[in-house]
Amino acid sequence: MTDLPSSSPAIDGERLWSDLMTLAQIGALPAGGCDRLALTEADGAARSLLRYWFEQAGLAVCVDPIGNIFGRREGTQPGLPPVFVGSHIDTQSPGGKFDGVLGVLAGLACIRALDKAGVSTRHPIEIVNWTNEEGARFAPGLMGSAVFTGQLDLAAAHASTDVSGVSVAQALAGIRQLGDAPLRRPVDSYFELHIEQGDRLQEAGRQIGVVTGSEFNCFADVECLGENAHAQATPMGQRRNPLAAAAELITAIEAIGRANAPVGSMGVASLRLWPNNRINIPHRVLFTYSGTHPERAAMAAMRAEIREAAAAIAARTGIRINLEPAPDREAADFDPELAALVEEIAAQQGLSTLRLRSRAGHDAIRMAPYCPTQMIFVPCKDGISHSEYEDCRQEDAVAGANVLLQALIARANRKG
Amino acid sequence: MTDLPSSSPAIDGERLWSDLMTLAQIGALPAGGCDRLALTEADGAARSLLRYWFEQAGLAVCVDPIGNIFGRREGTQPGLPPVFVGSHIDTQSPGGKFDGVLGVLAGLACIRALDKAGVSTRHPIEIVNWTNEEGARFAPGLMGSAVFTGQLDLAAAHASTDVSGVSVAQALAGIRQLGDAPLRRPVDSYFELHIEQGDRLQEAGRQIGVVTGSEFNCFADVECLGENAHAQATPMGQRRNPLAAAAELITAIEAIGRANAPVGSMGVASLRLWPNNRINIPHRVLFTYSGTHPERAAMAAMRAEIREAAAAIAARTGIRINLEPAPDREAADFDPELAALVEEIAAQQGLSTLRLRSRAGHDAIRMAPYCPTQMIFVPCKDGISHSEYEDCRQEDAVAGANVLLQALIARANRKG
Repeated sequence: MTDLPSSSPAIDGERLWSDLMTLAQIGALPAGGCDRLALTEADGAARSLLRYWFEQAGLAVCVDPIGNIFGRREGTQPGLPPVFVGSHIDTQSPGGKFDGVLGVLAGLACIRALDKAGVSTRHPIEIVNWTNEEGARFAPGLMGSAVFTGQLDLAAAHASTDVSGVSVAQALAGIRQLGDAPLRRPVDSYFELHIEQGDRLQEAGRQIGVVTGSEFNCFADVECLGENAHAQATPMGQRRNPLAAAAELITAIEAIGRANAPVGSMGVASLRLWPNNRINIPHRVLFTYSGTHPERAAMAAMRAEIREAAAAIAARTGIRINLEPAPDREAADFDPELAALVEEIAAQQGLSTLRLRSRAGHDAIRMAPYCPTQMIFVPCKDGISHSEYEDCRQEDAVAGANVLLQALIARANRKG
Repeated sequence: MTDLPSSSPAIDGERLWSDLMTLAQIGALPAGGCDRLALTEADGAARSLLRYWFEQAGLAVCVDPIGNIFGRREGTQPGLPPVFVGSHIDTQSPGGKFDGVLGVLAGLACIRALDKAGVSTRHPIEIVNWTNEEGARFAPGLMGSAVFTGQLDLAAAHASTDVSGVSVAQALAGIRQLGDAPLRRPVDSYFELHIEQGDRLQEAGRQIGVVTGSEFNCFADVECLGENAHAQATPMGQRRNPLAAAAELITAIEAIGRANAPVGSMGVASLRLWPNNRINIPHRVLFTYSGTHPERAAMAAMRAEIREAAAAIAARTGIRINLEPAPDREAADFDPELAALVEEIAAQQGLSTLRLRSRAGHDAIRMAPYCPTQMIFVPCKDGISHSEYEDCRQEDAVAGANVLLQALIARANRKG
């Protein structure tokens, strides 16, 4: 059904791995991870290196007003929209060497393979590095892809500030990444290679994850309101400590997550309190719970259990608990034809596959409503990411890049 | 046994209350409390007003290298060491209008009463405003009294920094409170009037607390060490979330506090995590528990229960839990003769008394090993302090100040 190319370009696996290890030196952490928060000096240095690599590969480079970087290889047929391939090079703090970076550098490896084999494509191919996928410094995450596709207003994104009050616009200007390439331009399709950030491929012993979309997921803030008081001298019976109530609710939420494992998850990773002083009981605690589930009803049931636990704790402790009524996020669907294409290519290359849905957020989820989109997962060790110990085997990364390469060729050469 | 004065100076209760309300306007918060953290601009402005009031009352004012402010009224007998009276005007954030401030402004009210009645004393009387009693911005609290008495090194105190990296020395210089009055000079005795920060006086329906010392208390940090991971995508079984373990331990600690109420207390008011990002499971959580108990064995038993709970949670979750082996703080003892003096004065004034020990930290605890020391408590509403809703009745504050006045006269006129 699809025209697969007759020539046989292939990924230079050593170079891809070398590039991954080189980029990981920018913001390197002692145990092997990276601290390269979006739009920091480290991100700026990594972007400079990426731009250098793009230019060395003969790509035309441009930057848009939210700092997304594009490296374009022209096609043979004038006027056709580009096939996009990419991901992001910002990281968590701490983060790993592969999350996001693999998708960008595998795109570059594909371009080099096409050049080396002398393969041209009808559609242009553009590698994209999306700004602030992680959302660790500036909210929301998936920012670059959301602005590019019109799902997030540019001015709102520019106004988002970090904990020090620095805005995205200021940070972009600070590392000279405030460009003028157009937003919302036509895109033929989007491919993103990524580590799984889960252990389903590892558990199943499969090499290539054919990602059919995302699962249902949620993020919701919980506010616990009590009353300030001296943390030693106030009689226990007079205390209204929102941290004590929050602790009980966190324990309940983690238990709900465990009860829904392994298919579902629910937990708490962040918390703030006002004031945060060991001698003063806080008046306010704010934390966020998040979770995933492949089934809509199960996600709704988990959230109902959280509401029940919160109501019981509030009634017992006298602490007011406000649950953000954030809706469950709908599962995104990627493109079935592109999923079939990836499966076909993997089979031709003798690679085992597993269809699965992503539990993590990705720029591909923002691209899915904008153009036909497909993600390819490769295994990551024990499902661990957002960690210095995030790991991916070279052979798995290269196998994924070779599948990506053939998918790009097939898509960019299709006659539609 | 003690020479009580024959004249009858008395506190101007309206002026004392007016001064309390005036000082509360500096750093005022909407619900009636104060935000006047040590050595901030607000603290500087409050210190300027205090110095003005001291000078208006004819006191000789000096400041020492840790910023303690002294206002001295000379005695009739040259060479005798001063009787100190005071407390602190820094507050928590948020804090109340009375915690600390009452002790300083009641001292000033005593001086004015002596002047108005034409009463002189053999010993000088000095009002002192101790720097950074609260410890909310700079650690440790009780800083000014600890440096003055030689229990804390001046250079170490100067080097302490706030969360923004500003040092005590920089902050003192910034509000021109870096003086050169001598530290460790002779002091005859120290009196401190304070709200109880507990509800024992209220519950007993007594007006004057005769404070015999402090209770056993503890402050100890707890560190929970886990592993970073994606907060949504990581399978529940692979997570090692130190916040989940901390939540369980906080719940256990609060239960231990409730089981020991009303005489004992134990709880948690502050917590930090690294990183603190809703999509990244933290690798480290640090929180502090604190508590009090009048009995050494009961305090030790509470801490043993915390260790057992921590060991059980660590074993079950795989989270490493490091308990700071901070020793229980010994109960401080105030001066029995001064306690008897205060009781005698209160009886003469027709005020009911209750002997009790302080559950909160006070500069008097630093002064107790340095010179004969006595605290006087007055009731505070529902035992609540370190809160905007901290409250004290005017008649109770004035009654306490009148007892303080007669105690100062008696002590400063004694022939010893």
